[in-house]
Amino acid sequence: MGTSYDKVAIVGHATTNFGDLYEHGISDIANLAIHGALKSAKMSPTEIDSLYVGNAGAGQFLGQEHLGSLISTESELNCPAIKIEASGASGAAAMRVAAHGVLTGYLERVAIVGVEKMTSFTKTSETQAALSTSLDTIWETSMGGTLPGNFALMARSHMRKYGTTSEQMAQVAVKNHDNARKNPRAQFKNKLRVDSILASKYVADPIHLFESCAASDGGSALILTNPDIAESYDPEPIYMRASKQAHDRIALHQRDEIYKLKSVEIAAEQGYRQLGIGPQDISVTEVHDVYTIAEIMAIEALGIVEYGQGGKATADGRTAIDGDIPVNTSGGLKGRGFPVGASGVAQTIEIIDQLKTQAGERQIENVNWGVTQSLGGAGGTAVVSFFSR
Amino acid sequence: MGTSYDKVAIVGHATTNFGDLYEHGISDIANLAIHGALKSAKMSPTEIDSLYVGNAGAGQFLGQEHLGSLISTESELNCPAIKIEASGASGAAAMRVAAHGVLTGYLERVAIVGVEKMTSFTKTSETQAALSTSLDTIWETSMGGTLPGNFALMARSHMRKYGTTSEQMAQVAVKNHDNARKNPRAQFKNKLRVDSILASKYVADPIHLFESCAASDGGSALILTNPDIAESYDPEPIYMRASKQAHDRIALHQRDEIYKLKSVEIAAEQGYRQLGIGPQDISVTEVHDVYTIAEIMAIEALGIVEYGQGGKATADGRTAIDGDIPVNTSGGLKGRGFPVGASGVAQTIEIIDQLKTQAGERQIENVNWGVTQSLGGAGGTAVVSFFSR
Repeated sequence: MGTSYDKVAIVGHATTNFGDLYEHGISDIANLAIHGALKSAKMSPTEIDSLYVGNAGAGQFLGQEHLGSLISTESELNCPAIKIEASGASGAAAMRVAAHGVLTGYLERVAIVGVEKMTSFTKTSETQAALSTSLDTIWETSMGGTLPGNFALMARSHMRKYGTTSEQMAQVAVKNHDNARKNPRAQFKNKLRVDSILASKYVADPIHLFESCAASDGGSALILTNPDIAESYDPEPIYMRASKQAHDRIALHQRDEIYKLKSVEIAAEQGYRQLGIGPQDISVTEVHDVYTIAEIMAIEALGIVEYGQGGKATADGRTAIDGDIPVNTSGGLKGRGFPVGASGVAQTIEIIDQLKTQAGERQIENVNWGVTQSLGGAGGTAVVSFFSR
Repeated sequence: MGTSYDKVAIVGHATTNFGDLYEHGISDIANLAIHGALKSAKMSPTEIDSLYVGNAGAGQFLGQEHLGSLISTESELNCPAIKIEASGASGAAAMRVAAHGVLTGYLERVAIVGVEKMTSFTKTSETQAALSTSLDTIWETSMGGTLPGNFALMARSHMRKYGTTSEQMAQVAVKNHDNARKNPRAQFKNKLRVDSILASKYVADPIHLFESCAASDGGSALILTNPDIAESYDPEPIYMRASKQAHDRIALHQRDEIYKLKSVEIAAEQGYRQLGIGPQDISVTEVHDVYTIAEIMAIEALGIVEYGQGGKATADGRTAIDGDIPVNTSGGLKGRGFPVGASGVAQTIEIIDQLKTQAGERQIENVNWGVTQSLGGAGGTAVVSFFSR
């Protein structure tokens, strides 16, 4: 007994700009993305069978739950809708379950919108408190744990284990801002230098301010269909070939080691096995660089470089657009911006642009397989998805 | 083409008691339910491919997001996990997408836990504010709208349109408490009388205090598998034959009429059509009686009685356990208790007990089809699910 379909087609996509979209509420942002994606698919809102909303924090940031129903109403999709929450992996996790809906054959056309409105608070401490709800509130947050604090512990552990340096970590942010400067939709287009990053204040030692994502508003949407009907919407659709999610223990003290992202490794391995490919087949990746150390750990866990080589590979320029293993050509979470729930969907849109040779100045040559990787919290959740023509 | 499977087997189930579980945190409650369900399926935690958490308010009530990762960790499932949020329909919506995962053939054994911890606040106003995040915060909540306020408007509209009376509405609560008295796991086992209900204070005119659900803690879990492997866990599994979700506009002022639950009608119709059955084939239903008017509107929208006949059918005893169309034999949300995210899963467990002839004093004779119906918010989301042997 097998599955009806072994892949899902992406026939429409759109994203808002990311940043402080003070003139737009969360529904407005979602609508812009959804209707942009519908337009690119030449699809009517009434054709959509189901809406999947990836969102991490509307309850915290806006006091708005039941977000699926709200967005389904305001977008005039008026179709069944749910919110999927998995912290920073919310958008990617929404894509996975939306794909399941299509793979069953029961749903023919589904919309996904990843969306976040994070600029509602006036105090950074409030924003930080909202983000830190993704940790274990009893064992971490209530003891003073924060998201940057956890990544700082992971960074220190990686430095001690592998000799990774602050300069190597800073190179991630330099590279991602360089890439963002080539992305018209990116939030941060200022050039960063290693010395200015290392001179910026610590958010949580050894992580500097300029190695950290900022709060951001934004939304990104996709339209998925089964392969049978895809070409009537897009003659050359991009296919999601696999989307794998894996788990690690939510709190850092419960893990055997914190210099590896075990959840990413497991999800990637599952994908490679199902597809009969390996890391050497990946042309371009969008990874979860919420802090610079996270990109280094991600490319190691994906198997793109060996464990301990992520810092050196970055400093050597291998992960740049003109390197042999380009990572975060969009600018990544750091440069493109990180509206949390939108992230996995926005990563996918960069991969689509690369696969369709529509990435402009950021275009990689001979793109074959593209991969996205998202994290929830400090790695308790990971989603790794595989795309090709 | 077509789907791999046309039904999903339920091979394990368990629920906690519902009420003020002050000695348990949300993970403890989820664990009790999950491990109870695993035990009933004689399944090891390591066999579970994926966990779906139905939860409406942990962010609001507990400041805990990334709940899937937390529960996957604390339960020792250590498998991919997401939270599904659709207000009062969160548990039912989680069942729908979990079923999609199994129907694809990619996931063989999945766990669902619906869970809520609502007794964390000391002030009712805080609890009420948390629940009212399920309305449209801009057009309803910020104008003073609340969940009981919305149902009060719907009740007034129903009374005006159909002549439904306060006495008829009160009969819903009388009947559901009578049923709860026969349910060892129910939260409220006190007998209610129409006169005492009508003498209780208004929560929102015409809804009285004793017509309203109380805040509750609780968790309910299911184990789903595909039909091919089901009988190795349960020789006589119950099957989910269809689970349909539908939408109505989230805010009441955006709807043409508010004396009907259009979302319930649409979801029910889709199920009847797929299964080739009608309301006359339903032996027993568990419906979303968050306020008494909601049960009356639910049985009308499901087609079990004609529009306008819900109040009379209740007062005539037709929906009692010994009536011809038994509704909420468990005691319903009113009597059994309403930990929001757990609700759709708890409803399913009552239907399983009825289909397996394990409902004790509440047992209906000749149960053929059982149906559950959940609402999100004031009907912006509805899920209707169909079960049989």
